[in-house]
Amino acid sequence: MYEIYMKRAIELSKKGIGTVNPNPLVGAVIVKNGRILGEGYHKRYGDAHAEINAFYNAKEDVKGGTMYVTLEPCSHYGKTPPCVNAIIKKGIKKVVIGMKDPNPLVSGRGIQILKEHGIEVIFGVLEEEIKKLNEIFIHYITTHSPFCILKTAMTLDGKIATIQGDSKWISNEQSRKFVHKIRNQVSAIMVGIGTVLADNPSLTTRLENKQGKDPLRIIVDSSARIPLEAKVLHLSSKAKTLIATTQKANPEKIKVLEDMGVEVMITPLKNNQVDLKFLMDYLGKRGVDSVLIEGGATLNFSALEERIVNKVFTFISPKMIGGEMAKAPIGGRGKEFIKDAFFLQNRSIRFFEEDLMIEGYMRKEE
Amino acid sequence: MYEIYMKRAIELSKKGIGTVNPNPLVGAVIVKNGRILGEGYHKRYGDAHAEINAFYNAKEDVKGGTMYVTLEPCSHYGKTPPCVNAIIKKGIKKVVIGMKDPNPLVSGRGIQILKEHGIEVIFGVLEEEIKKLNEIFIHYITTHSPFCILKTAMTLDGKIATIQGDSKWISNEQSRKFVHKIRNQVSAIMVGIGTVLADNPSLTTRLENKQGKDPLRIIVDSSARIPLEAKVLHLSSKAKTLIATTQKANPEKIKVLEDMGVEVMITPLKNNQVDLKFLMDYLGKRGVDSVLIEGGATLNFSALEERIVNKVFTFISPKMIGGEMAKAPIGGRGKEFIKDAFFLQNRSIRFFEEDLMIEGYMRKEE
Repeated sequence: MYEIYMKRAIELSKKGIGTVNPNPLVGAVIVKNGRILGEGYHKRYGDAHAEINAFYNAKEDVKGGTMYVTLEPCSHYGKTPPCVNAIIKKGIKKVVIGMKDPNPLVSGRGIQILKEHGIEVIFGVLEEEIKKLNEIFIHYITTHSPFCILKTAMTLDGKIATIQGDSKWISNEQSRKFVHKIRNQVSAIMVGIGTVLADNPSLTTRLENKQGKDPLRIIVDSSARIPLEAKVLHLSSKAKTLIATTQKANPEKIKVLEDMGVEVMITPLKNNQVDLKFLMDYLGKRGVDSVLIEGGATLNFSALEERIVNKVFTFISPKMIGGEMAKAPIGGRGKEFIKDAFFLQNRSIRFFEEDLMIEGYMRKEE
Repeated sequence: MYEIYMKRAIELSKKGIGTVNPNPLVGAVIVKNGRILGEGYHKRYGDAHAEINAFYNAKEDVKGGTMYVTLEPCSHYGKTPPCVNAIIKKGIKKVVIGMKDPNPLVSGRGIQILKEHGIEVIFGVLEEEIKKLNEIFIHYITTHSPFCILKTAMTLDGKIATIQGDSKWISNEQSRKFVHKIRNQVSAIMVGIGTVLADNPSLTTRLENKQGKDPLRIIVDSSARIPLEAKVLHLSSKAKTLIATTQKANPEKIKVLEDMGVEVMITPLKNNQVDLKFLMDYLGKRGVDSVLIEGGATLNFSALEERIVNKVFTFISPKMIGGEMAKAPIGGRGKEFIKDAFFLQNRSIRFFEEDLMIEGYMRKEE
């Protein structure tokens, strides 16, 4: 029975996708005598928490009721006062929690305070589902570094384009729509300069039925080779474009870019390229909780090699195009031996019509 | 209820895998008063048919019983007398058939004769399953050309080896075992000379618990470059090795190969290479009902381009190795545009531990 209301709280929490980062997705439901009295979710970073919204929306007295909430209620003053205070004050009798607060500094403290005030607490309800839904938040709050998703798409024979460079389309429309949903969920999208030069992409979010949120656009461009007419430099988008470059870049070019409103970040050199780990640390401090890496082949390999990748989405379309010189999704220097391969674990698969998507996680750094 | 006994007949038919080619897999069960009186299957090309074996194995009088048989009983004299005669003579009252004989010359005739003798006939029971199990036979009997299966294996980033050429192992042991099961089922295995030069494979069947049947080994080698010390030329195997070559080959080399007991087949030139369609016609006439193509990249592309491929098995291992110069499963000249890609249809997937296998069929030739 706990699961029915927790399911509802999870559904509510999903409404915050794309707007709560770097906060978690949280949903809350207040139940009394078998009836839902109030529902709420965390809508936007800085706004009220789910619990408070549920109280606000309740049409009847919640005293003696049970609160279902996907994440342990907070016990600290942040952008809003602690939710445990409100729960105690409103006379809630029992709190059912999905997952504990993953922040090691406060984890369990909310539960403790509730118990100290005589409130019955149950936790761990649908925990795995909620953890997966909040994998970005959990990673970010515990590491202070963005959760990186590497997305690739290829034919059944491992190509990302024909020998002529034709790539429209390897993946079908459903697959491409899913990628835009992911863009809407993450704080940043990252590509290499090669992709900008080859495809001149916009890197914006296009959703079907609702307004999407553009992620911060990051171009990894060690020598600041980006053409001043590149689309990413001329978008009417609320999100900014950030050029990650190095001392190899021409300072005058950097100045011009900055004057155009572009954010320029200079990292130390690592293998004569942008230091991706340094960049991730910087992004973490800048509040970026998640990065979607969309290629090309050189950046993809560096990202794996630098071990900044947490999750991989690989789309495979049932097409074969051949061509010895046709490009593959991951390039770079490459591994010399199979035994040293990057291995994807906790895999699952999904279908987008005829396309197959493999989703999985990288082994944690040794 | 028909399906229960037909399932059993199907299971029996599978015992003929690897030994009946180019005949179909057939199983038969005789049932009377709810008890199985006799079971049989077609064991080996030239041997008795399933129906006859079921009669032979029956411990009681089958008169008035029902026969379940996966394939329409034959009505012609071939290597054995017609099964319909035996069915009529034994006094079988009812015959339940999986699929009709796919041979257009005789399809339906067995059913007709049975009916003419007052025997009740049901057909189309578990037909799809039986058709799939006999896809090689159905293709061969209707086209007189071998059913070609293209098998590829790659990493999650589309490579068949590292930049160093290391490929041990991309696929795991379970996947490799499955490939040996397929080798045991087909009449021939085909590779390009590049694969022989690079890997010096044996191309034999290694099964775990039972003796496998080696397929005919076909090396596509336009200029007969095969080294005389290649493993495939020095095997103690009941199966032969066939070199498919062209006028580009040195006649003296051909003589030496033939003296070694190797079969040499000279095809016309097609794009300065072995004419694969010609080769398939020849193989069909030679009684080869099925060919497993195991690469390399150049042969794989030619096979697709020449449209000799009927089915594809693609193994994908959850490893990523990168490397711009690392090889992909399908090479050759390649298609210029995605719209012209070879498309896999009727797909299904299977897992071999962490490896994924996509199985599918090529669109029929327009």
